[in-house]
Amino acid sequence: MTYCVAIAVDAGLVFCSDSRTNAGIDQVSTYSKMHRFGVDGQRQFVILSAGNLGTSQATIARVKRDIKDRAIQSLLTVETMSEAADYLGAISRAEQEKHAKRAGGFGASFIIGGQIAGKKHRIMLVYAEGNHITSSHDTPYLQIGESKYGKPILDRILTRDLNLDTCALCALVSMDSTMRSNLSVGPPIEILVYRTDSLVQETPLRFEEGSEFLREVKRSWDQKLKDAFRQMPPFAWAASWDKSKDKAVNQDEDND
Amino acid sequence: MTYCVAIAVDAGLVFCSDSRTNAGIDQVSTYSKMHRFGVDGQRQFVILSAGNLGTSQATIARVKRDIKDRAIQSLLTVETMSEAADYLGAISRAEQEKHAKRAGGFGASFIIGGQIAGKKHRIMLVYAEGNHITSSHDTPYLQIGESKYGKPILDRILTRDLNLDTCALCALVSMDSTMRSNLSVGPPIEILVYRTDSLVQETPLRFEEGSEFLREVKRSWDQKLKDAFRQMPPFAWAASWDKSKDKAVNQDEDND
Repeated sequence: MTYCVAIAVDAGLVFCSDSRTNAGIDQVSTYSKMHRFGVDGQRQFVILSAGNLGTSQATIARVKRDIKDRAIQSLLTVETMSEAADYLGAISRAEQEKHAKRAGGFGASFIIGGQIAGKKHRIMLVYAEGNHITSSHDTPYLQIGESKYGKPILDRILTRDLNLDTCALCALVSMDSTMRSNLSVGPPIEILVYRTDSLVQETPLRFEEGSEFLREVKRSWDQKLKDAFRQMPPFAWAASWDKSKDKAVNQDEDND
Repeated sequence: MTYCVAIAVDAGLVFCSDSRTNAGIDQVSTYSKMHRFGVDGQRQFVILSAGNLGTSQATIARVKRDIKDRAIQSLLTVETMSEAADYLGAISRAEQEKHAKRAGGFGASFIIGGQIAGKKHRIMLVYAEGNHITSSHDTPYLQIGESKYGKPILDRILTRDLNLDTCALCALVSMDSTMRSNLSVGPPIEILVYRTDSLVQETPLRFEEGSEFLREVKRSWDQKLKDAFRQMPPFAWAASWDKSKDKAVNQDEDND
């Protein structure tokens, strides 16, 4: 399994991905799911991938080859992020269709984000079907892979005006919640922060299995959540609550 | 969609369920998913249901009919909670098979919990396939339906020695996280607390849409999570972290 999240705020973009892939619990490997492409000063892209590893590797390989071969269409020629997402989706579909006749389960999804000079920085989610969506003002993030465990904290914290350090920390906390609940999502964790209009290729920070910062995030978040829970209004209050509103009901069970 | 959770600790059992069912977003209805059966002083059962509403209603109807008709096997005759779960699973399978030849999607899952005099109080999850699992010392809860959003808080808080009020509050916070992330899970929320060895049928507390306690739980948890996040170690610390451990890497991207 995989978990990747990308965040788009006014200040820039944050990308975060785990590096564990598995095909059954006895075939666990480490692959980076974060790929960077671009020309400094002109355009920068980051792609995160989830799903079938064969499909995602073949797709990324093709994206690189198109750049190297100066193909008519490549990440160096697309004029908008939306066109980049369409291009990525078309390659992914083509790779899946090579095998889909013989068996199923070749789906892969991608997040592509970045900036082309003179345009807005954006993130797009490319579905296995090849189509795509972007983030919005109210939902400034996109997720692929095992997304549910880490979603609540993103929903509560993220707003467009946050600084990039806060967004990066939020992505790490979201990753931590996911790792706690799904063993097949795990370190190394890579995180890349892109500042709006910088147009330079950033180097991802990489947190290994024994990372002290990762352990500190885990320990600290666990403790703070427990403290937060202890400060909640007691349930006893509810049990003695105004009976006219939240009343104990003698349930009428006659649905037969 | 549905979310139900049951918790089993030394002090007793807590059952919590939402009451929203939907078949498409324009056909949203309210049905209780909590059903109680028992004879005071002898045995008490609570059943929570998720999945196909036709199957779960037919299953519950059959459970009631077997009690009324004094059938050879019913919740009044089973000798263990495990036998009760097997009985429930067999009915559920039979109901599904009535329709499964014509179409799919009739699956339903159940949690049954309670106590039979002289035996331990227990909770069991009955899968759509009819088999079942129980909770454990390390994982003192079971969930059915939309379970992922609300799982992290259960994993962090629940231990066998907690009091029932704390467990009930934890179930509500778990429900709150689920409702925030999945619109098709919603009030009324029912919660029932059973005290070990009481063997009396308890009345569920029911929190309606406008419930002040539910709103207070929501507001308070949201605020406390945000406060907790603000107190986390800053990400800037990671970015300047000991390079020998969590180092910024120049990623080698040659997987083609």
